[in-house]
Amino acid sequence: MRNYAGTPISKDEVDKLLHAAMAAPAAVNMPPWKFIVVTDKTVLKKLADGLPFAKMLLAAGTGIVVCAAPEEAALGSKEFTLLDCACASENILLAAESFDLGAVWTAIYPNKEVMDFVRNELNIPQQVIPLNLIPVGHPVAQEKAKDKYQPKNIYWNKWA
Amino acid sequence: MRNYAGTPISKDEVDKLLHAAMAAPAAVNMPPWKFIVVTDKTVLKKLADGLPFAKMLLAAGTGIVVCAAPEEAALGSKEFTLLDCACASENILLAAESFDLGAVWTAIYPNKEVMDFVRNELNIPQQVIPLNLIPVGHPVAQEKAKDKYQPKNIYWNKWA
Repeated sequence: MRNYAGTPISKDEVDKLLHAAMAAPAAVNMPPWKFIVVTDKTVLKKLADGLPFAKMLLAAGTGIVVCAAPEEAALGSKEFTLLDCACASENILLAAESFDLGAVWTAIYPNKEVMDFVRNELNIPQQVIPLNLIPVGHPVAQEKAKDKYQPKNIYWNKWA
Repeated sequence: MRNYAGTPISKDEVDKLLHAAMAAPAAVNMPPWKFIVVTDKTVLKKLADGLPFAKMLLAAGTGIVVCAAPEEAALGSKEFTLLDCACASENILLAAESFDLGAVWTAIYPNKEVMDFVRNELNIPQQVIPLNLIPVGHPVAQEKAKDKYQPKNIYWNKWA
């Protein structure tokens, strides 16, 4: 979803999205995620200006930066941390859809320059990985989900 | 969910779970996932015997191995591939829950020995990463979702 109506979502809606996010599974039940909710227009504009795929951020009105903190993860594992945070991100996208909101994953990780730009703008510690920025807002129109099912991706009992 | 009643799920249910999986977002719309559905008892037993966290596989009756194929991903990126496959996996877990089935992510990646064991048992090519094994089945009892919401993980407009 990339076309937003311009009116920001409510704090209550943000809170529901973050409840969904934190319901994701985490390795060894050690949640390694942090969420920076950006609603300040000055900050939104700086991020939109610096990020090539987040120009819709101002129209969306809210951006959620999902951050991965390996030091809080099981075994301090960067791999587990990123996977757990991907699940939390997917939960945000699905919850947004279920509330008729629009949301889209725009990548920060693994591009080092983009990660450093976001770390710098949002004061994120060096050891924390900003994974993505999810603009969330009211969509201009409801989009129909694409059918992306492909039987060729399915094997039975062993790789063909 | 780790306690299964012993009766396998139907092929129709497997198909619904895989529809949900492939509805996940993929970087640059290049889906890099493959799914090996294991229902053969001999294969299930071999996997259960070799994997320390998948002993419930035989009682579950079905295991889905989510595989990440970087060569099919945007830019051949291993990072994008793993994140996309994590989202597909989360969709399987959520879809299972919505159908009153039980499912749990048991890790294969990033443990090299475990990845090699699964590659060998299921004939998976060396360049493909088996990410996890998701036992799916009928639960002995419905479990209530834990509330894992933690306000300490939320920041507004910048870190801390």
